[in-house]
Amino acid sequence: MKNRGRLIVISGPSGAGKSTVVFKAIEGRTDVCFSTSVTTRKPREGEVDGREYFFVDLERFQEMVDHDELLEHAEYVANSYGTPRAYVEQQLNAGLNVLLDIEVQGARQIHEKMPEAIMVFIIPPSLDELKRRLEGRGTDTARAIEARLIRARQEYQEASFYNYLIVNDDADHAAKELDAIITAEDCRFSNRKTWLELP
Amino acid sequence: MKNRGRLIVISGPSGAGKSTVVFKAIEGRTDVCFSTSVTTRKPREGEVDGREYFFVDLERFQEMVDHDELLEHAEYVANSYGTPRAYVEQQLNAGLNVLLDIEVQGARQIHEKMPEAIMVFIIPPSLDELKRRLEGRGTDTARAIEARLIRARQEYQEASFYNYLIVNDDADHAAKELDAIITAEDCRFSNRKTWLELP
Repeated sequence: MKNRGRLIVISGPSGAGKSTVVFKAIEGRTDVCFSTSVTTRKPREGEVDGREYFFVDLERFQEMVDHDELLEHAEYVANSYGTPRAYVEQQLNAGLNVLLDIEVQGARQIHEKMPEAIMVFIIPPSLDELKRRLEGRGTDTARAIEARLIRARQEYQEASFYNYLIVNDDADHAAKELDAIITAEDCRFSNRKTWLELP
Repeated sequence: MKNRGRLIVISGPSGAGKSTVVFKAIEGRTDVCFSTSVTTRKPREGEVDGREYFFVDLERFQEMVDHDELLEHAEYVANSYGTPRAYVEQQLNAGLNVLLDIEVQGARQIHEKMPEAIMVFIIPPSLDELKRRLEGRGTDTARAIEARLIRARQEYQEASFYNYLIVNDDADHAAKELDAIITAEDCRFSNRKTWLELP
């Protein structure tokens, strides 16, 4: 029988490059799938509904909260984000590891409910680089960027319950580290059943 | 300033293929070095003094024990094994991770003295395969092989304090897992200092 899969929670400041790292890391892995979050935020240019996020309006989001359809949910810079529960449960039961890209508030909810979840925090290599990336997007006002920078430091200070920290100075290198973390966690002594346990 | 390196302890039954896995895993890594153990056992064919082991006589071994020159030492199938302390300390202080291939008794001593050491247990894919590998060596009598098989199961039962378990069904795959474990452990949140901690 296959073991139940494990949750891998990825967080980090907006502009840390999480999506790129995540998709590079799980490319070619058949044991990991990505859980797409729902959000009330408007799509950015190039974002596709169902790929980066499921984009919903506030009314539908509230309905999902009321019907307990979300594993966690949180507000972040005036938008709501959540993780659809059904998909995650289904994949875990099928023995797949499920990767979530969520905010620290939601991550804390997961960590408390499922202490065995693997928590990974990704940060950009420097404050200047974070600023540069946020400005490069051209989607935020100067004030929104300032809010994100303050928020980044706050999040980091709240992130001491994470197991791993990846500094994304190079997406390929960061993806290799995330890949290694997933592989290493599969090698946990407590996760593996072996022939030596047979009587 | 560089962080102090970490100890990575590898154990597993004789015939698990530990040496091959270890040398494949650290090939090309500049952040890991291998600590060669001392032993009173006679060299097997092809083994080189200072590579697989430092081969010493019982008198010299006892002298090392008496002078506290060994980080751990243990007896295994009527031979003595130990880890020279000076080399390990020197490498750790230089920021290198140090890999030890030692028996479970010695590993327990390390685990108690240095709970932050990373403990990895390597086993062969099956009892039949273990038997086949030990017989293939042609160095042990049937009785010695029987003793090793009994010992293998005992060791495994005592090994629940290990962090990771690798099943060596294929040396390249097993080496990739060990490599991933070393990389992942370097990503531990508590190990990494970052720019976000600056005031």
